[in-house]
Amino acid sequence: MRNVAIIGIGQVPVREHWDKSLKELGALALLEALDDAGRDSIDGLFVGNMLSGSLSEQEHLGALIADFAGLGGVEAVKVEAACASGAAAFRQAVLAVASGQKECVAALGVEKLTEFSGQKTSDALAEAADADFETSLGLTFVALNALVMRRFIYERKVEREAFAYFPMLAHANAKHNPNAMFRHDIQFEQYQKAKMIADPINLLDSSPIADGAAAVIVVPADKVKPSDNKIVQVLACEIATDAVALHDRAELLRLRAVEQSVQRALQTAGVTRSQINLFELHDAFSIMSLLSLEASGFMAAEEALRKIREGYFDVRGTLPLFTMGGLKGRGHPVGATGIYQITEAVMQLRGAAPAAVQVPDARIAMTQNIGGTGATVVTTILKGNQ
Amino acid sequence: MRNVAIIGIGQVPVREHWDKSLKELGALALLEALDDAGRDSIDGLFVGNMLSGSLSEQEHLGALIADFAGLGGVEAVKVEAACASGAAAFRQAVLAVASGQKECVAALGVEKLTEFSGQKTSDALAEAADADFETSLGLTFVALNALVMRRFIYERKVEREAFAYFPMLAHANAKHNPNAMFRHDIQFEQYQKAKMIADPINLLDSSPIADGAAAVIVVPADKVKPSDNKIVQVLACEIATDAVALHDRAELLRLRAVEQSVQRALQTAGVTRSQINLFELHDAFSIMSLLSLEASGFMAAEEALRKIREGYFDVRGTLPLFTMGGLKGRGHPVGATGIYQITEAVMQLRGAAPAAVQVPDARIAMTQNIGGTGATVVTTILKGNQ
Repeated sequence: MRNVAIIGIGQVPVREHWDKSLKELGALALLEALDDAGRDSIDGLFVGNMLSGSLSEQEHLGALIADFAGLGGVEAVKVEAACASGAAAFRQAVLAVASGQKECVAALGVEKLTEFSGQKTSDALAEAADADFETSLGLTFVALNALVMRRFIYERKVEREAFAYFPMLAHANAKHNPNAMFRHDIQFEQYQKAKMIADPINLLDSSPIADGAAAVIVVPADKVKPSDNKIVQVLACEIATDAVALHDRAELLRLRAVEQSVQRALQTAGVTRSQINLFELHDAFSIMSLLSLEASGFMAAEEALRKIREGYFDVRGTLPLFTMGGLKGRGHPVGATGIYQITEAVMQLRGAAPAAVQVPDARIAMTQNIGGTGATVVTTILKGNQ
Repeated sequence: MRNVAIIGIGQVPVREHWDKSLKELGALALLEALDDAGRDSIDGLFVGNMLSGSLSEQEHLGALIADFAGLGGVEAVKVEAACASGAAAFRQAVLAVASGQKECVAALGVEKLTEFSGQKTSDALAEAADADFETSLGLTFVALNALVMRRFIYERKVEREAFAYFPMLAHANAKHNPNAMFRHDIQFEQYQKAKMIADPINLLDSSPIADGAAAVIVVPADKVKPSDNKIVQVLACEIATDAVALHDRAELLRLRAVEQSVQRALQTAGVTRSQINLFELHDAFSIMSLLSLEASGFMAAEEALRKIREGYFDVRGTLPLFTMGGLKGRGHPVGATGIYQITEAVMQLRGAAPAAVQVPDARIAMTQNIGGTGATVVTTILKGNQ
C-alpha cells in the first residue's frame, strides 16, 4: 500500500449561496484545489454530500460536477455518510491512491442547505437518524442531541452554562477566518440569554446550517518532493460505525465509533495523543465537542469543561481546537464539513493559517468528522513538512 | 495492488416488498452473502443506493445496515452514482481490498421504490438527470430515453418494432430465475399492442421499478484456494463518466463513458471481446441495450437488431445477454441493480445458474451498470475457476 499526500486545497466561503447551484459551488472549490496543486487534471473524484437528493432533487453529483468542472470522463461517485460524508469521501480518495489504481484524486465536499424552508431542511437533516425508530416519533436532529446533552448534565452533574466556553472559543477563532460564516465574538452573557432551540440546547450550542464546498487533491507520497512545504502527509484516515439510533447504543454518553476510529488512526499513524498539535473536532453541538474529546482519549468531559476556561484549547494552548471556527463559527454545510476540516488542518500544517489563529510549530493535526449522533466517525491524522 | 476475488453472493427476490424496510432488505442480502462465503464478519461495507433519502427519508445507510445486520463498528458508507450506484459500491469494495487496507469487504446494493406514489417515484428517478437543465423542463427519466430512441429510429432508419426482441429475450430468460419479478414470456404481438409510455418507448421497452437487495463478499485473491469452484476472480472493474445532460454530449447516440470503461476494463483484465462468454448489460430501456452493445465494441446497433432474431444473444448463442432476465425481466431496483448483475454473473461462472439459462462453459463474464442516460458507467470483468 502506498502512502498518500495532500498537494492542493480549495474552499468557497461558507455562506448562504442562493446564487450558486450545487455543481457551481463544487466546481469552484475543485478548480481552486487543482490550481493550488498546480495540476490541470485528476483521474478520480469522490464527492461527499448528504442531501442533494432530498433538498435539490439532484443525485448523480459525481458525473455532474466532474463534467461541469471540465473533468469529463473521469471516474466520479458520490459518497454519503450523513454529516461525515465529506471525510468519508476523503477516505475513498486515499484508498484509491493507496491501492495503486489512481495517481491524482480529488475529494470534494459540497452541500446546499439554506435556500429551502426551515421545516424542509430540518426534516432532511433528520435523515441522519433512524427513520423507523427516531424521526418517525417526531424527533428532530437537534432534539436527539438535546437528549444526549440532558443526560450528560444529569449524569455528570454539571451546569448548562459551563458549555458556553465552547461556542465562545469557536467564534473567537472564526473571527479571523475569511471563509467563516460568523466572524464576530460572542460573550458569556449572550450564551446565557440565547434562545432555547431544544432544551437544553440553545441557539449558540448549535452550529448553523450553511452552503459550502471544499476540496483536496491527493497523490502518492513518493511522487512529490518531500521538502515541499505545501505537502501534507496523510498518516491515517479511519472510519468506524456504531448504532444509528440512540436507544441502540450500549451507553448514551459513550461514542464508541470515536473510540474505535481514533485508536485505529493513532495506531496506523504511529503517533501518540501528546504529539497532536491541533484537533479539528466535530462541534455540531457543544455536547458533541465534549463527548468527542472524552472518547478520543484526550480527557474526561468534565475536565474539558474546566480546561477550556484555562486556555488549554486556545490556538496557543496545549491542544488547540476548531482553530478556524469549527462547525459553530465557520458553519456546517454538512456533507462539506469534513473536507473543510481537512483543508483547515492543511493550512495550519503549511503555516498558512491566518496569523491570529496559526498554531505555532504545528506539525501533526487530527480531524474528526461525525455522522448522525455518533454512528459514523472518520478520524484523520495529517503531518506537515515544516 | 492485490488481486481480488468474490467468495460469496446473496440476493432477495426482486419484488414489491411493502413489508420490509430498507435495512431489512439490505441485511437479508448481506447475511445470505456472508453465509455463502462461510464468513461471519467483514471489515468494510459499501452500500450502493440512489434514493433512500428522497423516498424513504433515510440517509446514513452504511452505519444503519451494518448495525442492523449485527456488524456494528465496521467501516461503512453509502455510494451513489444514480442507477450505477450498485456497481460503483462494488468498485469501492474492490479498491478497499486491492489497496491492502481491508481483508474481507461486502458490496451491497439496496433500493425501495414501490411503496410511494408513481409521481413521487418518477420525480425521484429523474434525480439521475440534470435538475437545472433537464428535469426543470418537465422531462422525466423515461422521456429522456425516449428522445434518444426517437433519434436512433430516425438516424439509423429502423422500425420501432425491431426493438421487440430485446424485452422478449429478457422475459424468456427471467422465466427461469426464481428471483426475477416477471416470470412469464411476452410475445411479439404483445409488444405491438403495449401501451406507449413516452413515445416511442412503450411499456415493454421499459424495465420495471422494484424493491430489492443483493450483496457480494470480496477478499484478496491470494487468500483463497484457487481450486475452489465457488471463487470468482475480479479481473477488472472500471468507472467512466460523461456529461449528465443529453444536450451536453458530443453525440446523442454515442455512449462515450461505455466506450471508455469497456476499453479500460478489457485492458486491465487482459482479455478480448471474443473471450467474453456472457454480458449482463444495462437494459433499463431497449434502446440502452443497443447503444451499450455498440459502444462496448461488440457490433453496430443495427447488426444487434438482426442478430437477436438469429439467437446470437440466447443463453446458448455466441454472446448471451441478460441471462437471468436483465433489468426488464428480473426488475430494476436502481441502486441494487449493479450488484444483481454481478451476483448473476457469479452464478453463471460457478455453473450454478438455473439449468435452463446456464451458459455452457461460462468462464469470463462482463457486467455493465449505467447511471442516468449514460453519464456513469461501470464495467466489470469476472473470471470463474471452472
